[in-house]
Amino acid sequence: MIDRRTFATRAITASLAASLAPNLFSASTNSSNSDVRLGFIGVGGRGTGVLETLLEMEGVQFPAICDVIGKNLAQAQKLVEESGRDRPEAYLKGPYDYRRLLERDDLHGVVIATPWRWHIPMSIDTLNAGKAVACEVGPANSTEECWELVRAAEGSPASCMILENACYRRNMMALLNMTRQGLLGDLLQCRGGYLHDLRKRIILGKGTGVSLPTGGDYRTRQNQIRNGDIYPTHGLGPLAQILDINRGNRFVSLSAFATKSSGLQTWTNRNLPSDHPAQQYEWAMGDVVTSIIQCQNGENVVLTHDCALPRPKSFGWQIQGTLGIYNEEANGIHIDGRSKGHQWEPFEKYQSEFEHPVWQRYQKIGIRGGHDGADFLELSAFVEMLRQDKPAPLDAYDMATWMAITPLSEQSIQLGGQPVPFPDFSDGKWRNREPSFALT
Amino acid sequence: MIDRRTFATRAITASLAASLAPNLFSASTNSSNSDVRLGFIGVGGRGTGVLETLLEMEGVQFPAICDVIGKNLAQAQKLVEESGRDRPEAYLKGPYDYRRLLERDDLHGVVIATPWRWHIPMSIDTLNAGKAVACEVGPANSTEECWELVRAAEGSPASCMILENACYRRNMMALLNMTRQGLLGDLLQCRGGYLHDLRKRIILGKGTGVSLPTGGDYRTRQNQIRNGDIYPTHGLGPLAQILDINRGNRFVSLSAFATKSSGLQTWTNRNLPSDHPAQQYEWAMGDVVTSIIQCQNGENVVLTHDCALPRPKSFGWQIQGTLGIYNEEANGIHIDGRSKGHQWEPFEKYQSEFEHPVWQRYQKIGIRGGHDGADFLELSAFVEMLRQDKPAPLDAYDMATWMAITPLSEQSIQLGGQPVPFPDFSDGKWRNREPSFALT
Repeated sequence: MIDRRTFATRAITASLAASLAPNLFSASTNSSNSDVRLGFIGVGGRGTGVLETLLEMEGVQFPAICDVIGKNLAQAQKLVEESGRDRPEAYLKGPYDYRRLLERDDLHGVVIATPWRWHIPMSIDTLNAGKAVACEVGPANSTEECWELVRAAEGSPASCMILENACYRRNMMALLNMTRQGLLGDLLQCRGGYLHDLRKRIILGKGTGVSLPTGGDYRTRQNQIRNGDIYPTHGLGPLAQILDINRGNRFVSLSAFATKSSGLQTWTNRNLPSDHPAQQYEWAMGDVVTSIIQCQNGENVVLTHDCALPRPKSFGWQIQGTLGIYNEEANGIHIDGRSKGHQWEPFEKYQSEFEHPVWQRYQKIGIRGGHDGADFLELSAFVEMLRQDKPAPLDAYDMATWMAITPLSEQSIQLGGQPVPFPDFSDGKWRNREPSFALT
Repeated sequence: MIDRRTFATRAITASLAASLAPNLFSASTNSSNSDVRLGFIGVGGRGTGVLETLLEMEGVQFPAICDVIGKNLAQAQKLVEESGRDRPEAYLKGPYDYRRLLERDDLHGVVIATPWRWHIPMSIDTLNAGKAVACEVGPANSTEECWELVRAAEGSPASCMILENACYRRNMMALLNMTRQGLLGDLLQCRGGYLHDLRKRIILGKGTGVSLPTGGDYRTRQNQIRNGDIYPTHGLGPLAQILDINRGNRFVSLSAFATKSSGLQTWTNRNLPSDHPAQQYEWAMGDVVTSIIQCQNGENVVLTHDCALPRPKSFGWQIQGTLGIYNEEANGIHIDGRSKGHQWEPFEKYQSEFEHPVWQRYQKIGIRGGHDGADFLELSAFVEMLRQDKPAPLDAYDMATWMAITPLSEQSIQLGGQPVPFPDFSDGKWRNREPSFALT
């Protein structure tokens, strides 16, 4: 890693980061020269990847890192030191030691990349400690918890950002650009989801964090005890931006439906010995969970969670308006009057024509980091949000709204598919809030 | 047309028809040599196409044809005469003259290809007159009407077949073959629908049948007064066969969701003069109607109606099980252990390997007729059902179940997406009925 971080790279990186700004706003910036100091909670598989991406950036320090696993923490300290930065102080005294980290007075913000059930409680504690939050994605444990998050954010001087990298994907930013320009007309329906064959991962765990005594890890456990859309934000985030959710529009109700659970047991039977502990697991999670979310302005979103069956990975995105449609599975787009009648055109053609300005700049300096560059963009936005003391581009209202899909879908499934009201976490502010994400 | 109907063709055609049998059962047959005598109600655009396909078959006579439009009827008479058959008697005295046709004692069956709202009432009258029904697809007016159809069919010596040509499509029959062989494992979710840019057709009407005084035709009218899935059967029919609906499985509830209505007005504004009558139309129909149907055995079906927006035509079929998935938009299939990890394979490869036996025979004699040959297959099945006095391959329970989607989705949409119970039109018989369609 150290080889890639030359002075030249650093300088360019800082220049991109400046150009991204909190809302990826401006090409010029009034950023100060003082370093951004981040605490870090959770350096398992995903946390380490996030840390490595942040280490690519100039002017970011890591005084304190917390994890419950010594090996993970030691590796993270080593990565920071090898980057030429000071060795972070370790917080390793059990699951609540992160609260001691939050007491430090030298941190601007805290990155949270722990098992899912800790995300919102840790974010709330961080906001209450007056420090900004960058929290990885996942499900909420309850809608009450989402309300607490919103109240903590509203009562804190610090900002809260959800690290939804899908919002920064190149194709979705071009599509955001296109929909804002009216290419697809009035929007009617969006579709998306998380469609990813994770059978082995769910059943056996990934082994990069805490393993459960009963086998597997937090994702295993969530599949054992919950039946709802437990990973809603990747599919939903970019669609929520396109639909101006919490900024002139809002979700008003959600209905969810689960199939029976059959995929994980089938995989276990076919791939593990008959005396393997996983043969005894019981799975609460339906193999395919489909949610329909109705919007204030008359659109709806069909959201899918589908991780226990064999299939090519996809976000299943479709965006459909009065003048056009994009469909990810077909890799196609059709625009009234531009496309030949009843035919898809390859999306690539439109990708370059409607490249989002942020991505135009990003390509010039070179795309880097995980998830096709999206991770680097989102983390740059967080760092610049701190540097310029601006609002979060994806904020606590977004985080509460997207993560609340999980408990809401669980409720609707338990009620046989009855629609449940969608809480207005903005308490009416959605009416006057303006779209801000990635405006240039 | 006459040029193609040589003696040789006829002989081959008869042989195929025999091989299809009512349930596309057997390669041999005990069919009698007596002609099948059909009445025909409705010879507009679709009716004429159906008639032309039937005229390709040997041993089918058309003693009586009914329509409310003289020009359509005269053309149909001419087509029959030109085929070398006797000139049909015309029934032209208004919308109820078909009842006089039903009084004839020389008809084995009646083909119904009228505007949608007449389909079930005419089918009921036909069954009550003791004559078999071949009815074109469309929506039911009410669930009560579907019950009446089922009671008429149960009380009649004659059979009732819904002309759902999608069930006879080559790809869907291969997929039926594959799912019956277990290639996709236990099924979890199926998706499908009718996704067809019909904006011009809906707004202006097609002009092949009765035009409304207010402009447009029956399809225009349905879009003006209904908000539900008004064309459910093409998408649903093949999926219902794959899921053994009414034969070991059944639909238990339905939830439906409509977007706002914006597509038709947008098209009108952009394409018609400001003083065109269509500028004043009001559209009840939401642009995208999404229904989720939950099944007794734990699967569900996501069904879409989407005819008022620009888009390439598709049935949007997806069939997903514990061992594999088919997706029409991706033109791909993925089978656990056969396909490379996380990748689609082109469906064509599987199409030939798992060709349905009916289609193997059909290809040998040459595919013919509309909708890539599916029309000819379905109509052959109807003719052989009559010839061999066998049960209908797609029967009154199927017809009631599929067409009931329309009023059920209307009800659910009116209730804000609440699930509505799905009537068990079979009254419990689904438990013991065996799959029969296209078994060889």
